[in-house]
Amino acid sequence: MAHSLWRCGRHRTGAVFELFFRDNPFGGGFTIFAGLQNCLSFIHSFSLSSTAYVNASPSLSLSLQVALMEVSGPLAVVQLLETPLLNLVNYASLVATNAARFRLLVGPRIKLFELGLRRAQGPDGGLSGSKYSYIGGFDYTSNLLAGKLYGIPVRGSMAHSYITSFTSISELTFQTLKPVGDGAAVDFVGLSERWLGRVCRLLEESEEFPDAGERAAFISFALCYPSNFVALVDTYSVRRSGLPNFCAVALTLDELGYRAIGVRLDSGDLRQQSLHCRSVFRACSQTFEVPWFANLSIMASNNISEENLKELQCQEHEIDYIGVGTNLVTCPLQPSLGCVYKLTEVNGKARIKLSEDQSKTTLPGRKNSYRLYSPDGHPLLDLLTLHSEEAPRAGEEVQCCALGRKMERLQVTAANVEPLLSVYFERGQVRASSAKLGAGVRGWGAGGK
Amino acid sequence: MAHSLWRCGRHRTGAVFELFFRDNPFGGGFTIFAGLQNCLSFIHSFSLSSTAYVNASPSLSLSLQVALMEVSGPLAVVQLLETPLLNLVNYASLVATNAARFRLLVGPRIKLFELGLRRAQGPDGGLSGSKYSYIGGFDYTSNLLAGKLYGIPVRGSMAHSYITSFTSISELTFQTLKPVGDGAAVDFVGLSERWLGRVCRLLEESEEFPDAGERAAFISFALCYPSNFVALVDTYSVRRSGLPNFCAVALTLDELGYRAIGVRLDSGDLRQQSLHCRSVFRACSQTFEVPWFANLSIMASNNISEENLKELQCQEHEIDYIGVGTNLVTCPLQPSLGCVYKLTEVNGKARIKLSEDQSKTTLPGRKNSYRLYSPDGHPLLDLLTLHSEEAPRAGEEVQCCALGRKMERLQVTAANVEPLLSVYFERGQVRASSAKLGAGVRGWGAGGK
Repeated sequence: MAHSLWRCGRHRTGAVFELFFRDNPFGGGFTIFAGLQNCLSFIHSFSLSSTAYVNASPSLSLSLQVALMEVSGPLAVVQLLETPLLNLVNYASLVATNAARFRLLVGPRIKLFELGLRRAQGPDGGLSGSKYSYIGGFDYTSNLLAGKLYGIPVRGSMAHSYITSFTSISELTFQTLKPVGDGAAVDFVGLSERWLGRVCRLLEESEEFPDAGERAAFISFALCYPSNFVALVDTYSVRRSGLPNFCAVALTLDELGYRAIGVRLDSGDLRQQSLHCRSVFRACSQTFEVPWFANLSIMASNNISEENLKELQCQEHEIDYIGVGTNLVTCPLQPSLGCVYKLTEVNGKARIKLSEDQSKTTLPGRKNSYRLYSPDGHPLLDLLTLHSEEAPRAGEEVQCCALGRKMERLQVTAANVEPLLSVYFERGQVRASSAKLGAGVRGWGAGGK
Repeated sequence: MAHSLWRCGRHRTGAVFELFFRDNPFGGGFTIFAGLQNCLSFIHSFSLSSTAYVNASPSLSLSLQVALMEVSGPLAVVQLLETPLLNLVNYASLVATNAARFRLLVGPRIKLFELGLRRAQGPDGGLSGSKYSYIGGFDYTSNLLAGKLYGIPVRGSMAHSYITSFTSISELTFQTLKPVGDGAAVDFVGLSERWLGRVCRLLEESEEFPDAGERAAFISFALCYPSNFVALVDTYSVRRSGLPNFCAVALTLDELGYRAIGVRLDSGDLRQQSLHCRSVFRACSQTFEVPWFANLSIMASNNISEENLKELQCQEHEIDYIGVGTNLVTCPLQPSLGCVYKLTEVNGKARIKLSEDQSKTTLPGRKNSYRLYSPDGHPLLDLLTLHSEEAPRAGEEVQCCALGRKMERLQVTAANVEPLLSVYFERGQVRASSAKLGAGVRGWGAGGK
């Protein structure tokens, strides 16, 4: 296609493309625009494009058919950018928006961690999932490489197989730990067996039931990471094995001056189990006079989706950390964002694509876009104008019409006008305004002006 | 976790993991196992694993909880492989299975091309989508890099923006073409204008309506690729513009000894339009005495899914090529395959993971698996045995029970017994049997023994 443009001498003709989407994903009211940094890197390394020019909009997009990016330059060059730019924006924006929806659902208190690597589209898909979930409002990733490459805080716990790989306490080669500060190493195993007895008496559970292999796994982990002890407690039975074993090991750590972090639940009724865990932590805290024990973290994972999170949030629970994998990175409610990249102008002339589907007809002409705000700082609407029109001004009435409803005229007077497009790439170079990118990350919650 | 295994001296303990899934995706009856080659490359480059050992099953998996892979070696090493192997198998197998379902739906005659790059999880996700769609039974990809890297045949057509970038015939710098064989260049534009008149008279359409810019784009493309002319015909109107313009250009090519390939439809009622296109091609073929014109290819794309393909296949249509993007690579019916990687044996002892969810409990112990066939070559069942049990033999009765229904005993006598696991990696090296991989590609339709 580009070859044929070159053959007919049209490859250098000036052209303008817009990258936009037609519907917000997940039936929602907003989209986080993400992936711009990768687009700019790609355009920069795509050396032909020394004259390409990129305008891009801010990270939160509320309105449809307002360009996320406007790309102008020689026709052949900007046309070749179609597929790479769509690839780099579509999934990034989709997963960032999905992550933001999870964040809005749980509120600011609960910590969210991303666990999607195993279900992503290959290793790179996994990295994108981690990066854009973080941009959308997640706190942690379990993907170590994403942590290393993007500086995202990393969190994880042990695997079930780590626990089932142990069968008895005798498999522990090392059984001692030095207390915090000075002092000789103490028989950790012996101490924890005594704590297990006390915990089981408190909980009125049999001391026989807690699995010795599971306890060996917990002890092995605690000896290695005494200040970072998190235990996966559902391998055999949360109530009868995992939780008593965890409490025994965590109380042993406390005796030596260390504080455990908490437990992870990965199956069953997460809400009920969180309530039970909290009540056990409180009982231990009170009985054994260990105040911090009441506030141990409870982490939950296991096929968490928007739907079951909504249910969870309607009821009492004690979960502090929520891990989301599949339903975050694969976005099952809508696994693709339909961004398109359409020609709006060639050689200064507006271009349109009609279509057999009305909804696929494009808005012709190069455009500017503005967000109009009310006096109290709320966005009123996003205004599209032709590039040749004058910009709307604060305090002056603007006549406009709703997209797709030409007959409905609106008069709006904005207290504040924000131009939505800024220059990010010009004359072969990424422009200074891209420094906003860093600030834009996690900026979704900042809102308005 | 691995560090803690090393600290307690258990990192070298022999362990066996199984990688398997619990349910076939999309509510279907089979899964294509894909991604093994990437797994083997990963294990090979993961240099610690000089003693890891991989058994893997053939590419078509019909039964649940039969391991796709069995990985054995030092505990710390094989445990670290969990996430990478799951990442490499899950999406690969999901998309190969999805592709196979499209292939089964359309039958062997229709050509399928993959168009998913713009909606994939980044550039690598796009490559995986192309590769495993091809393995699952697609014929072409529009991803040039996938074509280059994996040797997949590449097909595509022009973009709408290529067409809308032209406004008039005068924009064509070159307007002539040499006929096939010898001879001087001919005025292609003049010829095609005359053909347009004839076509419009035949179709009883106004000669004014076909868009001149669209025709200029078609001519530009045809001059560049006279033997590879495919036109996207829905930019303005298939019936009144795209199709007459295509016929005019294709008949001009014919006059110079070239054969066009066909048209692509990308919006509207694809079935109805295909019938209309075919009737126009037949009419032109007969009226202008160009026999091959009746058999021009008709390609269709535009949000093709299993569902609308089922509808299409129930009715008469004339589509020869179908392009699938979003619904192929993002697998919206089920965007993830739930493969898991579970410990079955440590130090020769069987290991189990119970769970708060019954369905997540694992089958303990290292196992063999066999596919039993009837005398006419149909698979009867897949048999799991403990590794220590004797293999079933052809012609001898086997007692077994259905998974999860211990009380239901079955007696089966197989005419043929196929062991499902083969060695693919041993003592740090990929084994010769991995040469089967090449043969396995596209082998999904071969069936049985």
